[in-house]
Amino acid sequence: MDSHAFQLESWSRTHLDQVERALEQWVTAEAPVGAVHAAPAALVDAMRYSVLDGGKRLRPLLVLAAHEAVGGDSGAAAALRAACAVELIHAYSLVHDDMPCMDNDVLRRGKPTVHVRFGEASALLAGDALQALAFELLTPDDASVECTTQARLCSLLARAAGSAGMAGGQAIDLASVGHKLTEHELREMHQLKTGALLQGSVLMGAYCGQPNAVALAALRDYGAAIGLAFQVVDDILDVTADSITLGKTAGKDADNDKPTYVSLMGLARSQAYAQELLAQAQQALRQSGLHNTLALAALADMVVNRAS
Amino acid sequence: MDSHAFQLESWSRTHLDQVERALEQWVTAEAPVGAVHAAPAALVDAMRYSVLDGGKRLRPLLVLAAHEAVGGDSGAAAALRAACAVELIHAYSLVHDDMPCMDNDVLRRGKPTVHVRFGEASALLAGDALQALAFELLTPDDASVECTTQARLCSLLARAAGSAGMAGGQAIDLASVGHKLTEHELREMHQLKTGALLQGSVLMGAYCGQPNAVALAALRDYGAAIGLAFQVVDDILDVTADSITLGKTAGKDADNDKPTYVSLMGLARSQAYAQELLAQAQQALRQSGLHNTLALAALADMVVNRAS
Repeated sequence: MDSHAFQLESWSRTHLDQVERALEQWVTAEAPVGAVHAAPAALVDAMRYSVLDGGKRLRPLLVLAAHEAVGGDSGAAAALRAACAVELIHAYSLVHDDMPCMDNDVLRRGKPTVHVRFGEASALLAGDALQALAFELLTPDDASVECTTQARLCSLLARAAGSAGMAGGQAIDLASVGHKLTEHELREMHQLKTGALLQGSVLMGAYCGQPNAVALAALRDYGAAIGLAFQVVDDILDVTADSITLGKTAGKDADNDKPTYVSLMGLARSQAYAQELLAQAQQALRQSGLHNTLALAALADMVVNRAS
Repeated sequence: MDSHAFQLESWSRTHLDQVERALEQWVTAEAPVGAVHAAPAALVDAMRYSVLDGGKRLRPLLVLAAHEAVGGDSGAAAALRAACAVELIHAYSLVHDDMPCMDNDVLRRGKPTVHVRFGEASALLAGDALQALAFELLTPDDASVECTTQARLCSLLARAAGSAGMAGGQAIDLASVGHKLTEHELREMHQLKTGALLQGSVLMGAYCGQPNAVALAALRDYGAAIGLAFQVVDDILDVTADSITLGKTAGKDADNDKPTYVSLMGLARSQAYAQELLAQAQQALRQSGLHNTLALAALADMVVNRAS
């Protein structure tokens, strides 16, 4: 029996359900208790369109899996908030990335992109508001999340999203179009652009519990490996999959003359590299000293062996 | 002797100096101690251009003045970080607001706007990264700011910046072009767009110290009054000042058919309303039970009686 596949299917169903319900509740125009002002409905419509009913929710699942791996009983409220917060950051980055001044993409998850549906100005503001909302979710006014955890989660998320993380990686990506990158430069770009938030998701999940130093170091390595693997596989799928399967425009990278792993090392070596990174991720889990790592292992497997 | 004017000049010089030096140090490409990656230089250039060497720094001064008002000895490191964080949020909002899909402005603080100087994609990413950096500043890894304070500051800033704050106000602003608003609707828009971050600055400063409930309520009222006054005066200056004095394009609101206080209630009534809000702000300070409110009083006076 393939215990990974079995575990992941039922495990994901339960956890995705939690995440979807929480996002549905938290990305809303309703003023929170005690708030003087509500968010304007038109802005919230664009935010909800960006976030709800779409996406694999890989980052939230990584948060929840890492939280369970380190013990996971205490800090469940924090972990669910962290799971939604990383998804909001991911969602905002897609909204801004799709805009005409960036990738100018019209299709995302099989639907018109946010700026196509709501206009550019609304897409810009919806992205901005989603980033702020991520930090709102991490800092509830009730006592459901300890202050030390709130502060730690905000710290991790801000660094994963910012100029030495996701936004920095996108800036390098932008500057690299039409340029030849070395493998080292390409890796650096992707470690920031995609890797930082994936690794950040793993660490945020861990910090919702009580991780020890050995486990943290191992989870950091695991996060780095799958972060990079995710992008290598993305590059592979851009040339091997079609737009329907991907839910976004395939072949965009080559069209845009973007450096990719496939353009740099070819398809076969890219595929081998993805498998090597998967092995590194699994090795890190074995060295973590943690017992409950099946979900993390299965997610790594999914990242590398996904079809879309 | 006009004790307000005297106090503000010397007080502001000292405090602005601190803020400028801190921003210079914190908006940087240098990787912080322990960080694996540095931010790409091109992105940081655009971020520094957005933030350094310009602006009245009203929000940072409000943070520092409110912190001093509530006692101000403990929490000085937190207050300086909060002061810089609110300025980063303000700076990012200007960068995005100036973009072609929003206000399409080419001049800001007498200089070309960020997208004119660096391109639209870089302006978009610089704004995104500045928002993340604001939350980074609030969550230092050293022990200089207590975790409870870090969490509280992130909470206040996220709410002031987000969909029920600044970004929400900008969305209402966007939707209101060419529409007639009632005075109530106009006030609602500005309370979100400008008021939330100004009030948030005051509250963040207060929470760096040890505010009591009476002082907090009074500072909330003070912040609401000057937040609204700021926008009323902005609307007045848009018709009474020239572009050189403003450092941005004057007369834009009328050109863009934007509803303003002047278009709604006329110039004379707008000016009277600004003075009324100033009186409300001063009244709130008198009721705060705080002794050291001269800087806050002088800042309120400056907001209403400024020439640009």
